[in-house]
Formats: sequence, structure tokens, C-alpha cells
Amino acid sequence: MTVYKAPLNDYKFLFHEIFDVVEVCNRLGYENLDREMIDMMTEEWSQFVIDVWKPSNSDGDKIGSQLKNGEVISPPGFKDAWKQTVESGWLQSVCKEEHGGMELPLFFRNAMDEPAISCNMAISVVAALSLGVYDIISSHASQENIDLYAAKIGSGEWCGTMCLTEPHCGTDLGLIKTKATPQEDGSFTITGTKIFITAGDHDLSDNIVHMVLAKLPGAPEGSKGISLFLVPKFLSEGDELSSEKNNTSISGIEDKMGLHGSPTCVLNFDSSKGWLVGEENTGMALMFEMMNRERLATGMMGLGLGEIAYQNALAWSLERRQGRDLRGMKDLDAPADNILVHPDVRRMLLKAKVNCEGTRALGTWIGILLDEMKRGDEETKKHATSLIALLTPVMKAYSTDVGCQSASLAIQTMGGAGYCSEYGVEQFYRDARIAPIWEGTNGIQALDLVGRKVTQNFGHNLRHLMWPLLEFIEENRAIEEMVEFNKPLHKSVKGLQQLTLLLMAEGAGNPHFLAAGATDYCTYFGNTLLAYLWARMARVCINAKANGSATEFHEAKLASARVFFAEIHPDNVGLAAKIVAGHKHLMSYPEASF
Amino acid sequence: MTVYKAPLNDYKFLFHEIFDVVEVCNRLGYENLDREMIDMMTEEWSQFVIDVWKPSNSDGDKIGSQLKNGEVISPPGFKDAWKQTVESGWLQSVCKEEHGGMELPLFFRNAMDEPAISCNMAISVVAALSLGVYDIISSHASQENIDLYAAKIGSGEWCGTMCLTEPHCGTDLGLIKTKATPQEDGSFTITGTKIFITAGDHDLSDNIVHMVLAKLPGAPEGSKGISLFLVPKFLSEGDELSSEKNNTSISGIEDKMGLHGSPTCVLNFDSSKGWLVGEENTGMALMFEMMNRERLATGMMGLGLGEIAYQNALAWSLERRQGRDLRGMKDLDAPADNILVHPDVRRMLLKAKVNCEGTRALGTWIGILLDEMKRGDEETKKHATSLIALLTPVMKAYSTDVGCQSASLAIQTMGGAGYCSEYGVEQFYRDARIAPIWEGTNGIQALDLVGRKVTQNFGHNLRHLMWPLLEFIEENRAIEEMVEFNKPLHKSVKGLQQLTLLLMAEGAGNPHFLAAGATDYCTYFGNTLLAYLWARMARVCINAKANGSATEFHEAKLASARVFFAEIHPDNVGLAAKIVAGHKHLMSYPEASF
Repeated sequence: MTVYKAPLNDYKFLFHEIFDVVEVCNRLGYENLDREMIDMMTEEWSQFVIDVWKPSNSDGDKIGSQLKNGEVISPPGFKDAWKQTVESGWLQSVCKEEHGGMELPLFFRNAMDEPAISCNMAISVVAALSLGVYDIISSHASQENIDLYAAKIGSGEWCGTMCLTEPHCGTDLGLIKTKATPQEDGSFTITGTKIFITAGDHDLSDNIVHMVLAKLPGAPEGSKGISLFLVPKFLSEGDELSSEKNNTSISGIEDKMGLHGSPTCVLNFDSSKGWLVGEENTGMALMFEMMNRERLATGMMGLGLGEIAYQNALAWSLERRQGRDLRGMKDLDAPADNILVHPDVRRMLLKAKVNCEGTRALGTWIGILLDEMKRGDEETKKHATSLIALLTPVMKAYSTDVGCQSASLAIQTMGGAGYCSEYGVEQFYRDARIAPIWEGTNGIQALDLVGRKVTQNFGHNLRHLMWPLLEFIEENRAIEEMVEFNKPLHKSVKGLQQLTLLLMAEGAGNPHFLAAGATDYCTYFGNTLLAYLWARMARVCINAKANGSATEFHEAKLASARVFFAEIHPDNVGLAAKIVAGHKHLMSYPEASF
Repeated sequence: MTVYKAPLNDYKFLFHEIFDVVEVCNRLGYENLDREMIDMMTEEWSQFVIDVWKPSNSDGDKIGSQLKNGEVISPPGFKDAWKQTVESGWLQSVCKEEHGGMELPLFFRNAMDEPAISCNMAISVVAALSLGVYDIISSHASQENIDLYAAKIGSGEWCGTMCLTEPHCGTDLGLIKTKATPQEDGSFTITGTKIFITAGDHDLSDNIVHMVLAKLPGAPEGSKGISLFLVPKFLSEGDELSSEKNNTSISGIEDKMGLHGSPTCVLNFDSSKGWLVGEENTGMALMFEMMNRERLATGMMGLGLGEIAYQNALAWSLERRQGRDLRGMKDLDAPADNILVHPDVRRMLLKAKVNCEGTRALGTWIGILLDEMKRGDEETKKHATSLIALLTPVMKAYSTDVGCQSASLAIQTMGGAGYCSEYGVEQFYRDARIAPIWEGTNGIQALDLVGRKVTQNFGHNLRHLMWPLLEFIEENRAIEEMVEFNKPLHKSVKGLQQLTLLLMAEGAGNPHFLAAGATDYCTYFGNTLLAYLWARMARVCINAKANGSATEFHEAKLASARVFFAEIHPDNVGLAAKIVAGHKHLMSYPEASF
């Protein structure tokens, strides 16, 4: 049985000492949310997923979702966990008031993801997809469909899916073949096969509502001719569900490396009845709207799994005795010291821990920006929109990359035990590996960043980031205790500016140059954002020390900042060299010799 | 079904153009081994494992080895594959002539490992362990035991294991509790429990011979009081096997993330009969002798699995069409271009490919050094011994690290398909993850390198490496086409010298400093060795171009060298910064705040 404690203190620190979310709530009209309320909800939700979701996580892996007679059977415990989730009202709490919710802020919804993923990623995915579908339906479906579907999906009574990928295309959705044919009653019949559909079928809810990308007759070629349709598994007859399926069927579920609890379905639509969501041929834009949140949520997967993997490796290390402290025995009464005396064990554990703390700060920041984009005044909205454009692909790619790394470090710390299923950590390693692939591979995120987000808006997005960064650096230049953080941050920020200019200048003439450096640039970008957040966190701790309010937590956070700058941030130098190296060594490699 | 082609051309290049193994064979008295013979054997063995071992590899994963009524049942196909292997005489071919072998050189035995691992790592491990046990028995057991066991184990008719780890200790073997009690007939009774025993039981052979570390009564404390014992599963009665078990039993096999075909056993000895191998209390030294080869073989696992993962990702990429070349459509007749047009896809594939080519060169070099250590004249022996001391831990750690990375890059290239079991690559990713743990974790290898091998022998080991390196750099300084390789190599060699001095100087007073930088130093060391080998390979290709003998292979190898220096070698800058950062951020981190 794995151990897990929600990182409540870290969230308190981020919420109140770094980002001041109470001020954000007041400013954006999220009323009645004071500090106590926010902390209490964070704690209660975390306890809920620990009590209700976590117990079935291992069976989710070992038994998995299974396809029997065309129906997907969930792993033991999942159905009851979901029932309790719906009854608890937690999912609904983030929905609009007219759908029975409290419209909790997005930063809170984002923070909810972390313990949910740590406790049971397979169930968390059903929740994230359903709320994503709720968002689209409640904003873009016809009033009739909003009335019929929004509240039920928002509460989790019914669930939702995203149906994008087809056998011959995933990244390049312009190639999809699924067809939508208009009917006289204003509906459409949808026909086609979708693959890799997460939670495409299951027995957690009575109905499942699919959001399906399809092409209308005579639609433009490529991604400009794609529309979005709402296609329920069962149609409604008044207040009741029809007992007949809406011509949807599951012809297989994938056998995967991990995330066995979550069924990945081949989903067939055979003249299934559906309704257009939004305007014709705007499917890609709507899907991207949904994907902004899903990409952040996927980034949170790297964090959630990295965190629980770290916690279990730590618990093991505290018990495990092997060898002696190189500076002399620590525990004379025992035959060996506990392995935390070894610098290399500390290096592995602290790197994983700091990966989690850093991406948690980044995720929290983006969550708040989403609220500002949604509810801020015009200036705030503009600023937030620019930052989200940049930060979302970085969060998705960087956090899922380091999440896999953290899970690997946890395994390595535990040695053979890490590799054995009994200790549970290897599941996190396997589950985490999907995250760099999902919601657009990390390579695609990097191209989105460098090929689109950086240049978009006449390059203004980057200015919205650089202004506060350079201001922060300037502010801290004279503070002696900040030099160790501020100086490397400044170096990376200057490097980021230079690399961006290089990529734009060279990339204008040769997009291969841009694309060859994209992944390393995205990681460099992530390391630089993290350097900024770590310096901000360090500053708050240094202030707390100066004014006598510092606790053990602040001391540890300052120590974490040092670990970041010693163990993680130095990668930027090598990354810069790789970006500068360009594309020729890749593109001129003779294809026949691969 | 996965694809695989043995990298025969690469071995031909390494054997004949880089290391001149025919000269090595002549010099060391491996007679009758000319170029044709070596190439033919490489090809035939590769074809043998493709035909005989590979077909059962997937069942090995999906069905795995199973424990039934106290006996381990091998996956379907394994028994027959092993029977054919024994009959083929391939294993025996590396044994001494008096045991029916040809005493093939160690570099060849090492090269045999790669395709074997690619085709079926679970079976390859049985072969590697049995030959390792053969080596120990044939060199250190009593004549009676040599006569009884050596030939049978060498041929694979009987198999072998290494029994080191106990529930409370793995890395720190000084803590073992297994007891050996002397008997009047000169034998010993062995009692204790060993865990993580690879192939500790199976049905491939009639008998299994365990090499067991145990303590004699009154033996010194810690690792100086450990002796090695030969304990067979079944005792012999004359030429026959006794039908009674030798009081050994299997009380469990581990459920692991990967390598399911290979049973990882909990093995109990309950007054089992055994014989001392070597002298009393020399068990650790004997085990290390065996482990030198096993560590090289484990390094080859990173290579073997990285290579087959790469090959399958490449095969998939050649078929997969998605998006268009950013510089304009390539294939006008198709709805999309093949994904090799994308720089990031090429980056991933080429990084994996070059990881494999580089570690293959390093493995081949070490293989030859093992031959020189065994058969060379005194000067050669001294040189080879020093280099092997340094290169073995680096090969083990570096090659298994990049092997995991290569498998991960292969998955990422394939996207969702990489994560699905149907395509087979995810098995390689899971199987590969044991290699950084086995045979001493990579952290232990790094400590062995920096805390022992570098200082050992008054620092002479490193001089044996630096002499040829600096000579090579000097030789190539004036060659214009070599500048792009020689210059970064020189930089890394200078860096290695400085970092070594720093670690020795600081580490003398504070071993925590040394230990904190060990892992990054080991990776830096590996990158520098690879830079040397890539520069050597580039030089040969440049020469071939100059004298008109260059083929497509030479062009590709030169292109691979460029990929190494652009995509992999730049990591050294960041690694150096991390080593210099020292230990304080790790050791002062408050333990209660982990």
C-alpha cells in the first residue's frame, strides 16, 4: 500500500504568500472566498480523494478496465468511488450557479487536480474530461442541449469524452474522415471511427456524452473544415434516457503500458445522432479552448504522479539502512545508517521534490491567470491571455517531462524495490509516461510555443512575460541574500531573449532551424520560468526571515530554491548550445542510413 | 510483432576499421580468427537469436515466468529456445577448450550480448549468468567441482545464479546473515534467505548451480568476512543427479514492472550442501571478478534494448504520415508527408540511434581490453587493467541511462502507439528500467568510479586514459575537417582533468563533496569517452573520404558524429556546473522537511 499526504502547506504558501489568491478572488468577484474557506476546501477535497479514490488505485492498475460483450467494466471500487464523488457535489462546485454549482475559481479547480491525480489518475481523467465537456457545452451548445446536458455532466452524473484521433491521424487532425450529415430536424448523423478515446465507455455513469470532431459535406479541406458535435451514448426521451444506444459501439480497448484503470477505446459512430456545438467549421477552435485547460491538467499529471512517487521513495528511504555516512557513522546502535546520509540519495530525492514544488508553483500561477483571463478587466485580461498562451505549452511539456524524471528518480532511490510492483512506485512510472504524449505530444507543445505563441500578437506575448521578470530582477539586484538566485535568473532571462531572437531571425528564412530547436527551447523556457518562481519564493522566505516570521517551512523552501539552482537550472547552458547548433545535423542525415 | 536487424555493419566497422580486432587476435593468440571468420560468427549468432530467441520475447512479457507448486514455469517457447541454444554449442564456444569450447575472445562474447538482449533479454540473462558462474567455477572451484560442473554450466546444460542480496541488504553486502557451517567431509551447510535472485529457479535446465555469499563461523565483521559457496539445486550421485532437492526452495517470485520472462526469486537455503569456492573470506573479491563482466553485460542491456526500441520507432516513422514538411510539401501525391520530414522527429530518432552507436563502440573497446587484460604482455595488461577499472562503471551507468532514454525517445516518436502494448516498444521501455539498478545501482557505479577507480593505483588509472586521449587530440589538431570534433573533445578532456582535481582536492577533506558530484561526474566521464570514440570514428571516415574508399556507411557515421556533438555532448557544460555546486545544498537540507 502506497503512502500519500496532500501537500497542503505548499498550497497555503503558494496561495497566500506568493500569489495572494484572496486578493485575486476579491478583485475578480469570487465572493465569500476567504483564506480559511480556501484552505478548508483544499484540505477537504484532498481528504476526500485520499479516502474515496486512492483505495482503488492499485486494483485499477492490476485488474484494469475490461471490455466484456461490448461494454467496458470498471476496476473494482471505481463505480462506488465515482458515485460518492457525484454525491459529494465536489465536481459540480466548479460549475456555474445555474447548473447547481458555486463557480469556484479556476486556480482552485487546478489545485484540486493534483491530489486527485496522485490518488487515482484513472478516475481523475474522467472528472477532468467531464468538466472539460461541461465547459464547452455550457458555453457553446444550443440552449436546448445546455438544459439537457450541462448540469448532469457538471455534476458527474453523466460523463464526457473528447473524440479527436482517428487511426490515420492524431497530431494532424486536418486529415480526419468522420462525416456529419445534416438532418431535417436540425440534428446530424455522425459516422466514423475514433481511436485512443480515453474513457470512451465505462459503467461509472448512465450516459456518456462524446464531443466529436467531424466534417460536414463540402467543408473546406484540412483543419479549417472541422466541426464539433455533441453525440450522446444514449439519446434522451423527455426526462428519461432511451434504452437504445445511439449507434455507438466500442470495438476494442487498448492494452497499454500504464493507466490500466482508464479504458482507451476504439469508438465507432454509425449514423449516430448528434448536434452541432458552436458554428460550423469552428471545431478546432472550440477543441483548443477545451484543450487549454486539459493541457494544464495534463501538466498537473506530471506533478501529481511525481509527488506521490517521491513521497513513497522518501518513506522507503527513511526505513532503509544501508552503508554508513561517509563522514562517520551516524547511528551507532544500528548495523547501518539510514540511506538519507548518502549525498546521492539526497540528490535524487531532492531533485524529485524540487521538480514537484516548482511545477506546483507554475501550475498555480497559470490557474490564477485563467481566472484573470475569464473575469479580469480589459488590461488584466490582455496580460493574462498573453501569458497563458506562452505558459500553457511550457507547463504541459516541462511538467510532464520532469514528472517522468521524478518517478524515475523515485525508482532509482529504491533500487530493486522500486522495480517491484509490491511497492507501488513502478505504477506511477508507467502511468506518468502517457502524459508527455497526451493532449498533443511535448514536441507539438514546443512547436506551438516557438512557432506560434512567441510570434503571435506581434511578439507581444513575450513582452508580457519579460516586463515583470526584468522588473523583478531589477528590484532584487541590490539585495545581498538574493544574489545567488537573482544572478542565474538574470543570465537565463538574457539567454532566453537571445535564443528567441536567434530562432525568429534564423527561423524566418528556415523553419527547420526553428523546429529543430523547439524542444530544447521549450525546456529552456520552462527552466527560466521556474528560476523566476524559485527566486520569487526565495525572496518571500528571505523577507520572512528578516521580519522574524520565518518557520521551518520557509527554511526548507529556501533550501529547495538552492537545490533548484544547483541541480536543475544549470541544464540551460547545454540546452542553449543545442539550440544554437541548429538543424543541419538533423536534416542532412541521409534518410537511407537511419 | 516487432522488427529487428542486427547492426552487423556497425560491428564490422568497429571490429575492423576502428579497433582492428584481427590484429588483437593475432597478438593475443586467438588463432584461426580472421576477418571472415569473425564476421561470419557475428552474423550467424545474430541470426540464431533472431530465429530462436526473438519469437518468444513477447510471450515472455505477456505471460511471464510463473510460480506453480514451488516450481518456476518458463514462458511458452523459452524451454525450446534454450534447448536449441545448448545444442547449438554457441555458449560453450566461449569456454575453455578442456570444457568443450573454443575460448572465443571476450570482445566477441561481449558483441554476442547485444543482439541476444535485443531479441530476448530474459533468456540472455540466463546465458550471461551461467557463463559468469562458469568463469568463477572454472577458475576458482576445487578440481572435483570443476570436473563436475564447469563443462555442464558452460554449455548451458545446467544453469547458474548469483545469490548476493538479502531482504535487509543489497548495496551493503557486509550485512548479510546467510551462514555457512563446515562439515566433516569438507563441504558446508548453507542456511539463509536470498532475494532478487535472477533466474533463481526455472525449468530450462535439469540443474541450477547457485553461487552464494555467506558467512563462516567467526568470520570478520562486514564485507571482509564473506565467503563464496557453490550450492547446486540438485546434488550429483556419480554421473546422475539426485532426485532429492538440496534443501533449496523458492518461496516467491517478484511481480515486476518488466522483464517478466525472467523470474526474480526469493530463494531459501535450509542446511543446503555447498562447497567453498576460492579461499575463505574472499567472497567479495570473487564476486567482483564476476561482476566486471556482468557490469559490462548490463551496460550492453541499455544498448540492446535502446537499439531494438529505436529500430521499431524508425519502422513506424517510415510508415506514418502526419503534417507537412515546414519547407513545403514533400510528397504531393499523399495527404501528408512521412514524419521523418519533421526536425523534432529526426532529433528523437537520431539521438536514440547515436546513443546506441556510441555505447556500442564503448562496449567493444572494453571487450577488447578484457582480452588484453587476460592475455596481453605485462605492459598491455597493466594498461588494460587500468582502463577497465575506469571504463567498466562508466559503461554500466552511462549505457543503461541512455538506454532508458533511447527507449523513451522511441515511445515519444510513436506517440500513443508507443504507449500501447500492440507495438511492442513499451516492453523495451519497461525491461530497460532494471538495468540502471542491477549489478550495483548507477549511483554505486559512480561512487566506485570517483571514490575508488580514479584514486586507485596512485591515480595512474586516469593517466592510462589521458595519455592516448591527449595524444589523439594533438595528432588531429592540424586537420581541418577534424576541428569540429577535436575542439569540443579537447574542451571536455580539459574539463575532466579539472573536475577530477576538484573532486580529489575537495573530496579529500569532505567525502560528501565527492559523493554529491559522483553521478554527474560519471555522466561527464561517459560523454567525454564518447566524444573521444566519436572523434576517432569521424577520423576514420574522413580518411576514407580522402582516400576514396568512403561508402554511404562512412557518410552516415560522420553524420552520427555530428549529431553526438550537437545533441548529446553539450550536456557536459551543465554537468560540470552541477559538480562544482558541491554538496551543501544537499547535506544541509533539513531532514524533517524532506
